[in-house]
Amino acid sequence: MTISTPQRQLLADAALRERASAVVPGGVYGHMSVMRQMPPSYPQFYSRGSGARVHDVDGNEYIDFMCAFGPMIAGYANPVIDAAAREQQVLGDALSGPTSHFVALAELLVETVAHAEWAMFAKNGTDATSIAVVTARAATGKTKLLKARKSYHGANAWFTPAPAGVTAADRANIIEFDYNDIASVETAVAEAGGDVAAIIVTPFRHDGLTDQEYATPEFAVGVRAIATRIGSALILDEVRTGFRIDAAGAWEQYGVRPDLTAFSKGIANGYALAAVVGIDAFKQAASEIYVTGSFWMGGVSMAAAVATLGILTNGGIAAMTSAGDAFRTGIQTQAEAHGFTVVQTGPVTMPFLRFEDDAELSTVFAFTDAAIRRGVILHPWHNMFLSAAHTDDDIRDALERTDDAFAETRSLFPL
Amino acid sequence: MTISTPQRQLLADAALRERASAVVPGGVYGHMSVMRQMPPSYPQFYSRGSGARVHDVDGNEYIDFMCAFGPMIAGYANPVIDAAAREQQVLGDALSGPTSHFVALAELLVETVAHAEWAMFAKNGTDATSIAVVTARAATGKTKLLKARKSYHGANAWFTPAPAGVTAADRANIIEFDYNDIASVETAVAEAGGDVAAIIVTPFRHDGLTDQEYATPEFAVGVRAIATRIGSALILDEVRTGFRIDAAGAWEQYGVRPDLTAFSKGIANGYALAAVVGIDAFKQAASEIYVTGSFWMGGVSMAAAVATLGILTNGGIAAMTSAGDAFRTGIQTQAEAHGFTVVQTGPVTMPFLRFEDDAELSTVFAFTDAAIRRGVILHPWHNMFLSAAHTDDDIRDALERTDDAFAETRSLFPL
Repeated sequence: MTISTPQRQLLADAALRERASAVVPGGVYGHMSVMRQMPPSYPQFYSRGSGARVHDVDGNEYIDFMCAFGPMIAGYANPVIDAAAREQQVLGDALSGPTSHFVALAELLVETVAHAEWAMFAKNGTDATSIAVVTARAATGKTKLLKARKSYHGANAWFTPAPAGVTAADRANIIEFDYNDIASVETAVAEAGGDVAAIIVTPFRHDGLTDQEYATPEFAVGVRAIATRIGSALILDEVRTGFRIDAAGAWEQYGVRPDLTAFSKGIANGYALAAVVGIDAFKQAASEIYVTGSFWMGGVSMAAAVATLGILTNGGIAAMTSAGDAFRTGIQTQAEAHGFTVVQTGPVTMPFLRFEDDAELSTVFAFTDAAIRRGVILHPWHNMFLSAAHTDDDIRDALERTDDAFAETRSLFPL
Repeated sequence: MTISTPQRQLLADAALRERASAVVPGGVYGHMSVMRQMPPSYPQFYSRGSGARVHDVDGNEYIDFMCAFGPMIAGYANPVIDAAAREQQVLGDALSGPTSHFVALAELLVETVAHAEWAMFAKNGTDATSIAVVTARAATGKTKLLKARKSYHGANAWFTPAPAGVTAADRANIIEFDYNDIASVETAVAEAGGDVAAIIVTPFRHDGLTDQEYATPEFAVGVRAIATRIGSALILDEVRTGFRIDAAGAWEQYGVRPDLTAFSKGIANGYALAAVVGIDAFKQAASEIYVTGSFWMGGVSMAAAVATLGILTNGGIAAMTSAGDAFRTGIQTQAEAHGFTVVQTGPVTMPFLRFEDDAELSTVFAFTDAAIRRGVILHPWHNMFLSAAHTDDDIRDALERTDDAFAETRSLFPL
């Protein structure tokens, strides 16, 4: 058997990398930088997208299972969402006050998210988690924030995973517990000595470099009970999970409702928007904090969000789930056929993939490198994202290519 | 003489306010909320803008001297900028990596801003000031941040002017000095005991509720010399002033160059974008911090920024300055004709207006209320903004209306 190892031209990409390195620290920074922690064949720069497919700047097409790390949730260049946004864009985005979309979107979130009785808007996921924390402190008059070890809640000095430039004071009010370990939450509460403003938690454990882990019902119910008992806020960080599990709230399945929820990423299908929703008991405090941003009242992303939520709550999440199911099943079957044991965790709309006995990630790096050269964007150590625009054809084409990628990987790691 | 006191229909506005109050804390929050600290006749909700004019949701037109609090700098619905943005929007905004606009804009900022040797992008002005601070800490290994008392540098817990929800730890590393008082900077340095990561300062003092104050040359040169002497970064916060004074840097007039500058607001004419630029000595540190956001790599606002900077550096700032000069002169002449002494301070592109002997703001509230009812958006206690799209006709029409507004104000406060 001859194994093909396709290559692509990445000439424009290479030229842009060189220019970027001259004028941007690290070339490209943040979660989209591929230069430091990704297999070698990943393109860095993209030009366009349509449905579930994107093109890099050299014109190569990919079926995209990263979805811009989450913002794309109903398809690149979705015609319905883009038309709604465009209708407001020609009228104006940043004006000297909000538009009617501000009210319409707040009403829609209150109607859609089970616990939501009010909403506020911002631009970054970090804005949303931070507003929730500040609101919780204003409401409770307490200080400490309890979070799970390694859980990502944003990239400001409170939360960023890198230590560079962060001071001890920035973290002085954060106490960590272990995800799915209620005893460790109680220990953190005791350490705080009653001064807990909020417990912030993601709906499932979606840390990088490790199997994704659902919240146990005991954990979800338990943190809710603890927050209520000690008079602190329960903040659900749905920046990543929002509208990819349950539009009413990712913990509705456990019958657990938070006091405050942070959304961003997929809420407007890539238009820059974040939202905080909360229950009435926190509304007065939320009106007393001062948070704002130059572009937070812009109507375009809010019009886009109304259209996006309409799609997601009318079959979009079901379509995404169906596509994710088919992809997971296909990958599992292919892996076995090629003699690999892969471990797939997390919701099928936010899949995480690793190979067994691959502590150094060499197998998964080889596999995702082989896939990217065949036009499939996967991630070797971060959860991926499905969208409502991943069609049967997209999944079939992607699986044809991953089958070849498994074959190439097997040729590099013979049995 | 009969004084007309025009009224407008604000029925749609009133209906939206009522709906907003039900689902948003405080109805509208942040710097665009008019319900708590503004004269009674201001509309809260807008529908569209074109050039220097905006329409509220009831269809009333205004000549806008707030420019969305700064983001609008080259005209609402600017055809050149919107075409550049639209060209990328139809291809895609948030993709699974940056576009070529990321590189082009970084190169343009390095070319345009005198001290800039690199650039990074984000979404909020607060992102930009915060990234500059974290970069300074990473580069210097020091902790404290020196800022001027009352200077606004953003709305996160480090900077927000409201105390609600802010902890002592959030402010533990901030030491304040007085703007234009070098001795007070030295006192702050001494208090920090050598542990100063950065001095952050606005190009002029543009605090609300007070006359705007240019930096004295001694102050600008002095903070530069102190930062250099003690091995800390000088951060210029140009979020508000950026590209409204000098595209090369607002302190070029003093021959003073900062190490890091924060931009946002006008940089992309209302498309959500922020930027940090810096000198090479801080580039390595900037590559070591972890900052990112879901939408920070989006190409649309970067394409808009390239077009915006092209307009501003090719006559745009001059046009804005000329319009601001004419408006200031006209207001001064009218005030005197009506027997008022008004005090206008700050750059003509960012004017601040107060009435003498008006400590309770009753005269300026009456005047700006009279102006808004005649279709001119002014601000009674915050700096205003001109744009490159304020035409001679806009200034002439505005001044016709402010003349009437002065007359109405005089009728309320007879000599």
